[in-house]
Amino acid sequence: MALDDRKSQFLHVGTTPNRPDGLDKVTGRARFGADAYAPGMLHGAILRSPHAHARIKRIDISRAEALKDVKAVITRADFADVPFEPGLQGEFWNVLENVMAGETALYDGHAIAAVAATTALAARDAVKLIEVEYEVLPHVTDVDEAMKDGAPIIREGAADYSVPEGMHPNVVRYHESGHGDVEAGFAEADLVIEDHFVTEATHQGYIEPHACLGSLGADGKGELWCCTQGHWVVQKTCAALLGIETSQLRVTASEIGGGFGGKTTVFIEPVALALSRKANRPVKIVMSRNEVFRATGPTASASMDVKIGMKKDGTITAAEGVFRLQGGAFPGAPGDMTAMCAFAPYNLTNVRQVGYDVMTNRPKQAAYRAPGSPMAAFATESVIDELCNQLGLDPIDVRLKNASHEGTKASYGPRFERIGLVETLEAAKAHPHYLAPLKPGQGRGISCGFWFNHGGETSVSLSLSEDGTVQLAVGTPDIGGSRASMALMAAEVLGIPYENVRVTIADTATLGYNDVSHGSRVTYASGLATIKAAEDAVRRLCARAAAKWGIPEDAVKWENGCAVPSGPNAGAFDPLPLAEITASMGRTGGPISGHYEATPEGAGVSFATHIVDAEVDRETGKTKVVRYTVIQDAGKAIHPTYVEGQYQGGAAQGIGWALNEEYIYNTSGRLENPLFLDYRIPVASDLPMIDTVIVEVPNPGHPYGVRGVGETSICPPLAAIANAVSAAAEVRMRHLPMSPPRVLSALKSDG
Amino acid sequence: MALDDRKSQFLHVGTTPNRPDGLDKVTGRARFGADAYAPGMLHGAILRSPHAHARIKRIDISRAEALKDVKAVITRADFADVPFEPGLQGEFWNVLENVMAGETALYDGHAIAAVAATTALAARDAVKLIEVEYEVLPHVTDVDEAMKDGAPIIREGAADYSVPEGMHPNVVRYHESGHGDVEAGFAEADLVIEDHFVTEATHQGYIEPHACLGSLGADGKGELWCCTQGHWVVQKTCAALLGIETSQLRVTASEIGGGFGGKTTVFIEPVALALSRKANRPVKIVMSRNEVFRATGPTASASMDVKIGMKKDGTITAAEGVFRLQGGAFPGAPGDMTAMCAFAPYNLTNVRQVGYDVMTNRPKQAAYRAPGSPMAAFATESVIDELCNQLGLDPIDVRLKNASHEGTKASYGPRFERIGLVETLEAAKAHPHYLAPLKPGQGRGISCGFWFNHGGETSVSLSLSEDGTVQLAVGTPDIGGSRASMALMAAEVLGIPYENVRVTIADTATLGYNDVSHGSRVTYASGLATIKAAEDAVRRLCARAAAKWGIPEDAVKWENGCAVPSGPNAGAFDPLPLAEITASMGRTGGPISGHYEATPEGAGVSFATHIVDAEVDRETGKTKVVRYTVIQDAGKAIHPTYVEGQYQGGAAQGIGWALNEEYIYNTSGRLENPLFLDYRIPVASDLPMIDTVIVEVPNPGHPYGVRGVGETSICPPLAAIANAVSAAAEVRMRHLPMSPPRVLSALKSDG
Repeated sequence: MALDDRKSQFLHVGTTPNRPDGLDKVTGRARFGADAYAPGMLHGAILRSPHAHARIKRIDISRAEALKDVKAVITRADFADVPFEPGLQGEFWNVLENVMAGETALYDGHAIAAVAATTALAARDAVKLIEVEYEVLPHVTDVDEAMKDGAPIIREGAADYSVPEGMHPNVVRYHESGHGDVEAGFAEADLVIEDHFVTEATHQGYIEPHACLGSLGADGKGELWCCTQGHWVVQKTCAALLGIETSQLRVTASEIGGGFGGKTTVFIEPVALALSRKANRPVKIVMSRNEVFRATGPTASASMDVKIGMKKDGTITAAEGVFRLQGGAFPGAPGDMTAMCAFAPYNLTNVRQVGYDVMTNRPKQAAYRAPGSPMAAFATESVIDELCNQLGLDPIDVRLKNASHEGTKASYGPRFERIGLVETLEAAKAHPHYLAPLKPGQGRGISCGFWFNHGGETSVSLSLSEDGTVQLAVGTPDIGGSRASMALMAAEVLGIPYENVRVTIADTATLGYNDVSHGSRVTYASGLATIKAAEDAVRRLCARAAAKWGIPEDAVKWENGCAVPSGPNAGAFDPLPLAEITASMGRTGGPISGHYEATPEGAGVSFATHIVDAEVDRETGKTKVVRYTVIQDAGKAIHPTYVEGQYQGGAAQGIGWALNEEYIYNTSGRLENPLFLDYRIPVASDLPMIDTVIVEVPNPGHPYGVRGVGETSICPPLAAIANAVSAAAEVRMRHLPMSPPRVLSALKSDG
Repeated sequence: MALDDRKSQFLHVGTTPNRPDGLDKVTGRARFGADAYAPGMLHGAILRSPHAHARIKRIDISRAEALKDVKAVITRADFADVPFEPGLQGEFWNVLENVMAGETALYDGHAIAAVAATTALAARDAVKLIEVEYEVLPHVTDVDEAMKDGAPIIREGAADYSVPEGMHPNVVRYHESGHGDVEAGFAEADLVIEDHFVTEATHQGYIEPHACLGSLGADGKGELWCCTQGHWVVQKTCAALLGIETSQLRVTASEIGGGFGGKTTVFIEPVALALSRKANRPVKIVMSRNEVFRATGPTASASMDVKIGMKKDGTITAAEGVFRLQGGAFPGAPGDMTAMCAFAPYNLTNVRQVGYDVMTNRPKQAAYRAPGSPMAAFATESVIDELCNQLGLDPIDVRLKNASHEGTKASYGPRFERIGLVETLEAAKAHPHYLAPLKPGQGRGISCGFWFNHGGETSVSLSLSEDGTVQLAVGTPDIGGSRASMALMAAEVLGIPYENVRVTIADTATLGYNDVSHGSRVTYASGLATIKAAEDAVRRLCARAAAKWGIPEDAVKWENGCAVPSGPNAGAFDPLPLAEITASMGRTGGPISGHYEATPEGAGVSFATHIVDAEVDRETGKTKVVRYTVIQDAGKAIHPTYVEGQYQGGAAQGIGWALNEEYIYNTSGRLENPLFLDYRIPVASDLPMIDTVIVEVPNPGHPYGVRGVGETSICPPLAAIANAVSAAAEVRMRHLPMSPPRVLSALKSDG
């Protein structure tokens, strides 16, 4: 059946039952990172560099080690000797160097040594007794400064093959793509606008700090409980950093209090394991908020130049962008993805984009929902907005005119399969929000956004209990209600009640490899694997019925949770319900399970269009978002409420990023606001009700048409809000966040 | 390749590497039942009946509930309303009634109510404040007394369909089997001996008491950590007793400090969950040793009559036995299995056996290594020994003359496939122990023993890590070194080092159903499933190589841990090692795993022959076992050291059972020795070095020929020791244990 026609046929998919982990979370029964205990457990604490850049001349741990309560003190020497390689080739090395500094402290907060003691207090006290002699070095924290001649070099030789000759060694990866002739395109335009945009580093702001409990023996066998978006990556990374075999480390993911990309790598986990190996006891480490800000991964900051040419009728003739992404003291800033996303919503004849991955004396950036895309959209969509303004065109009509559609050669190379950008724009145009009048002093902003989405390695197993209920083991931590989505899809295939499925996030020892919960991949890839695993179980259920009835296996089909004889045998036997088959499965061949392992390749890209109304207090510079509508293509919303939650969450985080959040470094290169008091994420009173529209243009790469929805929702907000604020303030905002001082300054300079 | 020829071809099977859990166990890192913690955890304690039989007229929990530290008090009313059915049909009901008494306390130690409080001390104090008004009823604890007219009835209507009319209601199951004409057989005999034998209840004596940590919410979703031999049975039993869905309860097996059959059911687990549901907090319960003795399952006691006829040349002409097994206050005593095992070692023309399952006011018996078989062998092999003595025949020659072999119609019905009894007898006859002279005052005893072994429902999954190491998830708790055996078999199939395999006992949520670790089934069934799962992975590995090479999948074979092109492509490509395939598996199709689920039916029966030398101190009645040799067919010893461990363990427990261990009830029906001080298990100084001979007669039902070895080793000891003691004391010992007072009494009565 065609996916478009199938919609109305679903029994469970598209309904909105309570989430299976709901009671656990509201009653406090859910166990997060810090909720694990082990007999004889020690507590770890980490000594961190107070300098942005300093050579470590000497570390004396003797006074700390001498304390009675201290059972282990470690430095870099207690980790494996991982080989250095340039760029992302040296990922394990980069992670290790970030987890525990080698010869040089590279940023304020960089780990230098760690202690395990019988109490957390004793560990923190002991850390203070570790003596470090530093030679302070010149530092750089700004991306443009870091690319200039004479800027302090973070690490000689860190750049990979992609970087053209003659660039500063801090440029470690380079991306260039596009097609057509941009110069010819600009020549065709009636109006060309080029502008410079800046965004600051922001933090994902997850509520739960990183926490873990690790145990590792002299035999190279270990266990780790940790708060992560992907425990198989934690497993193989920790194994590499500790010099043990991957399979010998069993990693269990705790419940997770937010990740948003920031929990896709390791920080404290290898430290806990190294301390445990030395102390021969389990070791727990829980980060403070200060540590989370200073030493985990914020998003990259960006310096961007975008140039777009447009005809009077709104046709874009050419687009060009340069995107410089600051990723901290290691390679990894998404210069490539920023560039690739920048013009993806548009069907362009002439397009060219360049991305730089630049190192500075800051913590290693981490993913934060659609890494690079929100900044790219801010630059691109601001320029388009300005073009519309100057040419007197409707911003939605212009986007519709140029919108990517099925068959478009994307700005970054491939041809799009079926996509839903036009549908989101049409829904926006028809939405009451877009038609509603603005009050005086308010501005309205529009933006499109794009994200690739990802498939990734995926394993799912499903086993049936005698009473006909089902246990579904998936390997992707539930960061947004995916237990509910998985249960819905399993129930759909098996034809049983949603409540009869228990979804468990399996540990690394009991399920095949699973990539991280990132790239908006979970509902797509784990969902696809769940459907396939359930279909595998259905095949076995049908085989049992066939054996009971004495007819061929292919003469049995599965309908409404029952095996049913089909073809020439139709009606010859009563339908056999799942629970009747499972009740006797031990005597009819054994336990019934279903399995699936794959790297699905059909993750559909996704698009969104956001509409924002904002008003600006010209006296204080404070911006208020007064109305917000998210319109996004979900392909197929398995659990619409949680899809809406993703839409609203992306918008809310985008509002924070656009208006207030930023990493503020002082001249010494120290982070000045490593606390929620000074790093201002939006609270309820900062947010309007965020309205959502779920567009469903099926992804042909998923049995039910699912597209990932978790990231695209954060792509348009920076731009949409900037366009709204620019309209309200009547001045183009080119630097985020649009905090009150920055708005006041813009009003002053342009006003 | 024939299994007999394959022996020398194994790379890993048959070697004796260190066990994977060795370091964990010697350093204390292994987590046993009591080693689990959860935030907000409460401690449970159980009120137990001081009476052997009493009607519960009133329970007042108000004083206990009023305590500040008490968060929940429960009675039977807090469990599900499970329907009563007779015999083993009512297993869930029987378990529930044993877990928490309904209207009547049925034995000393029967649970009446339970408390959860913030500390273990507070819970124990609160238990004392629960007021119970009892009406004490007449009781019976002896099996022969329980079958007499006028004996107190434990439960009217408990007997199942198998019990002939006219029997006392305490007889709840009846077994009769055999073939030929025993009367005619006895008429052919030159000598017929009939004798009466008694064994007392003994406890498995596992070092670790039962312990668990349970959490159950009002949403019917729960988690349970517990010390068990089989967590899937715990899962479905607890679900039934709590009235929740099986799949909604996730059960994890802790490390286990001994089970021997005694941890195959639940006692405290449903109590912890019911307390948790009421208190809305996790609840831990740890039994004291007193509770373990009084309220878990000892083995059944037995009263047995055996009659055997023999010709002068040693030919057995007929055998008949009546076996009355006392199973406590619920159905389940192995009257059937005792009867079926009694004459299984012998190829008999005329045989008949009867078994009774009899209820008394004692705790519900549980399995204890080969339930019923040791007692049966004690009776049968004592009579054979006496026949040999009186006819002047060599006890091994007589057994060889009558031994069951391939094709023998077993006393209990089926025809034996390939078995190794004759081989164990021949090994015994040739063993230096059998040829060694005895010192004055010493006696030598011989006995054969038999056990069925079991297959059972089994699921195994195996996943490969990128570095080529392997994670093997099995569902049978490791009660005797099975992690090592499984790793050896997986390594054998995959052609990789043993150390590269990590074996994990998966929880119920992440693997298909697994029957309990019992019936000597683990190395057989989980081993078979491991081999099949590894072969499944090998198929996928070969398919990746085939795709890489562009040749058909069936043109690739697996050799020495590498994919190798075969047939017309032989030599066309270099062998592709496992780790090279896994390194790129994410990009070549996804994660590689292997799975297998089945109920294997080919568990081979197994036989053993034991030789014991004993001497008796005629002044004190104390027996000393001076030499002990176990000769047993293992089919194929996967890890010979742990096979020897099973042999030695069975012999050691048999020595305790034969010489000292017994449940002693006083006239009030109270257990008088519920502590290791008074219940005397053998300590090191009580035991000789136990010599072992591993005979390997392959089991055709297993790919490597494995037979279970865990239970057969306890079948001969009671008889072999009794025969040795009878020879040394020159008086036939008919009542176990042969404790000093009982030996003295025998010497006096016969001397």
